[in-house]
Amino acid sequence: MRRRNVKNAKGRIEKHQELVILNPKDYKGRWHELFGNSNPIYLEIGMGKGKFLKEHALTNPNINYIGVEKFDSVIVQAVEKIYPLELSNIKLINIDAEELLDIFESNELSKIFLNFSDPWPKNRHAKRRLTHKLFLDRYNAVLNGSIEMKTDNRELFEFSLISFNQDNWNFEKLSLDLHNQENEEENKIITTEYEEKFMNKGNNIYFVEVTKKD
Amino acid sequence: MRRRNVKNAKGRIEKHQELVILNPKDYKGRWHELFGNSNPIYLEIGMGKGKFLKEHALTNPNINYIGVEKFDSVIVQAVEKIYPLELSNIKLINIDAEELLDIFESNELSKIFLNFSDPWPKNRHAKRRLTHKLFLDRYNAVLNGSIEMKTDNRELFEFSLISFNQDNWNFEKLSLDLHNQENEEENKIITTEYEEKFMNKGNNIYFVEVTKKD
Repeated sequence: MRRRNVKNAKGRIEKHQELVILNPKDYKGRWHELFGNSNPIYLEIGMGKGKFLKEHALTNPNINYIGVEKFDSVIVQAVEKIYPLELSNIKLINIDAEELLDIFESNELSKIFLNFSDPWPKNRHAKRRLTHKLFLDRYNAVLNGSIEMKTDNRELFEFSLISFNQDNWNFEKLSLDLHNQENEEENKIITTEYEEKFMNKGNNIYFVEVTKKD
Repeated sequence: MRRRNVKNAKGRIEKHQELVILNPKDYKGRWHELFGNSNPIYLEIGMGKGKFLKEHALTNPNINYIGVEKFDSVIVQAVEKIYPLELSNIKLINIDAEELLDIFESNELSKIFLNFSDPWPKNRHAKRRLTHKLFLDRYNAVLNGSIEMKTDNRELFEFSLISFNQDNWNFEKLSLDLHNQENEEENKIITTEYEEKFMNKGNNIYFVEVTKKD
């Protein structure tokens, strides 16, 4: 995600407090209450400009979506795009994924999406990758369901498969070329902004869905 | 592996009984005795014409190699190529991998290579794939070490990663583009006939090394 300086991002976010939850720690264990129903809650970490989350929320009114994005200069673009749609099943939070345990109770989430996460290519930054064991342990602490990961970065995907495998996650589905699967159904997938760009360049998209083994 | 009818394959194999073991079941638990040393034994299943096995045996005199190939029309080509080299650390057997448990004792093998195995693309043939759980259980019964798999077939590799993962094998190394790794060392690998052909076409080679989790 290329980030530009965005003028008064914080102020523009704060105008839309129905959509952006400014005090997410206050809702730990109470997110269903906030949504006003008991529908499953799906979380996207690093939601960027929000295309994927928005389209999911529009397509699946019986699922609640929360988007996490740590850069206010990025989340502000999602906020201003999603706000006019008046969707009751989507909330955004402007935090770092390291804080997940302060924000969600165990089993509070039914799915986590990791789309085109920062690959952090240098070995000394491996701990920052969103599929490092440090993060997988956090997801496991709040998740009762699966993680779905998409990326076009080969090295990140290799690292992630090893990380999921070694940390005892079960591979439910896996594709090394998501948009070139035989199964037509698999192609009816909601894409992110980046995915569209990569696909148009003819790049492979890698995909894996995992659940924690007992 | 494209197979041609080979004239008198059986007779030509039987001429080289120092190299091809015609009664492999008689050596169950006695392969080290046959090699005359206690060096580790590495097995290649589906050795084809034997380039990979031959180069390994030449490079590593302190490792014993056994090549398995079920088609006599194929193994005969390996036999006639390897025989003149008079290598004491290589034996070939003309069997189906389904018979492994009749041929090896538990822990008798230290490594198994699966190179460019038949992908058996139809779902109804999944049980024939050499990375199906049925085969993994056989490998585990005779192996004290790792399996190294190489293939250029995406669907087979996807299937295999899921199969290894679900059957509790640990990913030790993994590459989605073996000959395009950053680590130069990784490139000094002995290739098979097929691999050379695929690489020259610019195709990806997938690689994984796994060990059984406790």
